[in-house]
Amino acid sequence: MERQDKGLAWMLRYENIAWYEDGAVSILDRRIYPVEINKVICRSHQEVAEAIRDMVTQSAGPYTAAAMGMALAAYECKGRSEEEQLAYLQDAAYTISHARPTTTWRMQKITEACIAEAKQALAAGKSDVSEVIKDFAIEQNNERYAGIGTVGRYMAGLFPEHGAVMTYCFAETIVGMMLKEAKIQGKDIRLFCPETRPYFQGARLTASVANDMGFDVTVITDGMPAFVMKNEGIDVFTTAADVICCDGHVVNKVGTYNTAIAAKYHGVPYYVSGTPDKGHPTVDTVKIEMRDPDFVLQAMGTLTANQDVKGYYPAFDITPPELVSGVVTDQGVLAPDKLSEYRFAKDQFLV
Amino acid sequence: MERQDKGLAWMLRYENIAWYEDGAVSILDRRIYPVEINKVICRSHQEVAEAIRDMVTQSAGPYTAAAMGMALAAYECKGRSEEEQLAYLQDAAYTISHARPTTTWRMQKITEACIAEAKQALAAGKSDVSEVIKDFAIEQNNERYAGIGTVGRYMAGLFPEHGAVMTYCFAETIVGMMLKEAKIQGKDIRLFCPETRPYFQGARLTASVANDMGFDVTVITDGMPAFVMKNEGIDVFTTAADVICCDGHVVNKVGTYNTAIAAKYHGVPYYVSGTPDKGHPTVDTVKIEMRDPDFVLQAMGTLTANQDVKGYYPAFDITPPELVSGVVTDQGVLAPDKLSEYRFAKDQFLV
Repeated sequence: MERQDKGLAWMLRYENIAWYEDGAVSILDRRIYPVEINKVICRSHQEVAEAIRDMVTQSAGPYTAAAMGMALAAYECKGRSEEEQLAYLQDAAYTISHARPTTTWRMQKITEACIAEAKQALAAGKSDVSEVIKDFAIEQNNERYAGIGTVGRYMAGLFPEHGAVMTYCFAETIVGMMLKEAKIQGKDIRLFCPETRPYFQGARLTASVANDMGFDVTVITDGMPAFVMKNEGIDVFTTAADVICCDGHVVNKVGTYNTAIAAKYHGVPYYVSGTPDKGHPTVDTVKIEMRDPDFVLQAMGTLTANQDVKGYYPAFDITPPELVSGVVTDQGVLAPDKLSEYRFAKDQFLV
Repeated sequence: MERQDKGLAWMLRYENIAWYEDGAVSILDRRIYPVEINKVICRSHQEVAEAIRDMVTQSAGPYTAAAMGMALAAYECKGRSEEEQLAYLQDAAYTISHARPTTTWRMQKITEACIAEAKQALAAGKSDVSEVIKDFAIEQNNERYAGIGTVGRYMAGLFPEHGAVMTYCFAETIVGMMLKEAKIQGKDIRLFCPETRPYFQGARLTASVANDMGFDVTVITDGMPAFVMKNEGIDVFTTAADVICCDGHVVNKVGTYNTAIAAKYHGVPYYVSGTPDKGHPTVDTVKIEMRDPDFVLQAMGTLTANQDVKGYYPAFDITPPELVSGVVTDQGVLAPDKLSEYRFAKDQFLV
């Protein structure tokens, strides 16, 4: 791999995750980063929704992309009447927030918040609110990053002084914050990263960013977690989550559940970082997104199976609370059956 | 994938697995089959050992390759004195049987048996025993296949009338025998095959051969077994084994242990096919082969991770007896803690 010299800090700057400017949103293509550094340019909010659906960005990336997509939608309808603009933004919010079914609730909250900002600015007489929404997106990201910094501090606090941590998939900002905090707290940590098929986020993203930060990183296949827990002494298994239901069920990249079972079997605690999702009071409201099954029949673009056979591709799986040792929030570590103790700020929808 | 029309029956004919002729052994390259049908030609017994080490063939393939490699060794030393030929064959047996550490005991038994045949023929005045060893290899394979046919019948007997079976990796002959028997017994079975990283044997080999035989086959990633057990109702999880220790520990392709834990968690029985390995009275004698770690940092030849990070590649893992529902032998299904009930034939070392 000819790797380009743009590491974690670069990758997680808003302007690289997703950025609205001059009537377009550019999104870093995580499907190929860091092998190639490529940005997908979206010239309409529909293209932003498509990019999210196609997994150009993932983890928390879509939240930034959604807000920037709303700024683009505002640009598309600028100069129209206040009423027309608000109707247009409502349509755009629907399109963007429904790009992927499992995280729709949070995406709706983000796009609604953008509309509320737009409404205020339109009422004050502005005819182009695209920059207003962009500024709001940046402000929201700043708040979120501050919250995640706190989560990272609590998370690193659960690591031993010397030991090994297993991750799964790529947890975006929290990976950086958690590792930064581990350094600050003087934790001497080796990382084991299952590669996370079919997109290899663990190999490509988590391992790369941890390596950029100077950690000892080992990539394993998704079938090896049990062997590694048994033979290498994993102290903590940790992931972020796409949804943490208020009843303690954790929805995250498929493979998390498999690994959480192996962790339980070996007595390795599993900590998930994030905050409860008010849109999912129980797991019953979760809809697991089924993606193109053929994608499982290839690896890095090369077919792995006879095309007469079928693939199967649930994007996420659900880990029940009995396998979760704790939910690491910005308010501390909560037991999965005690998420009602989390105190939501007014209108809070994201850390 | 442009697939060549040579299916299971073709693949499992001895002359395609490994075949001695005219001073060379040709071995079907399973690392790329069925994408390409390519045979590796070995012109010395050392090259046969290298091919086994490089995983040109796997599962039971090395047993056939070992015996054919001994025929080649005999060709190499033909015409020398009886004593010199036997010394040469002893050397060759060491080289071939030590190609991979985990299965050395069985490989030693096979090569020793070849030498015993050679000794008899040399004593009878033959100066070139290569064809004698080749004939013996074929005879051994015939016996083994007959035994595996019986195992397949017992295995298929454990399947429900209508249901779903999960496999792992590629179990060579037993896959064919088990599926053939399932058809004979009228079992209506769907198969789920984890792809089995890093070589994709599950996707490339098991899924292809089951599809060739007309089964409904779905390939999943190695992180999905738990999700599939939970949501698709798997009735039986089954694998073959590289070693079944007499104390019930099962040594098989890395990922088996991970999946057996998921099976236990979901109440799915795990049946392993094969016979106890007299060379391993307990698990303590098992040496897990660690292969080139960099191989985990690529998929189908494309790098998946920054090369500054490390890989980790145990070829096998060990599933303890508490996760094994039964060992399906040619003498019926035995509990893993009752393998002492297996009656070994004189000098038996393989089914």
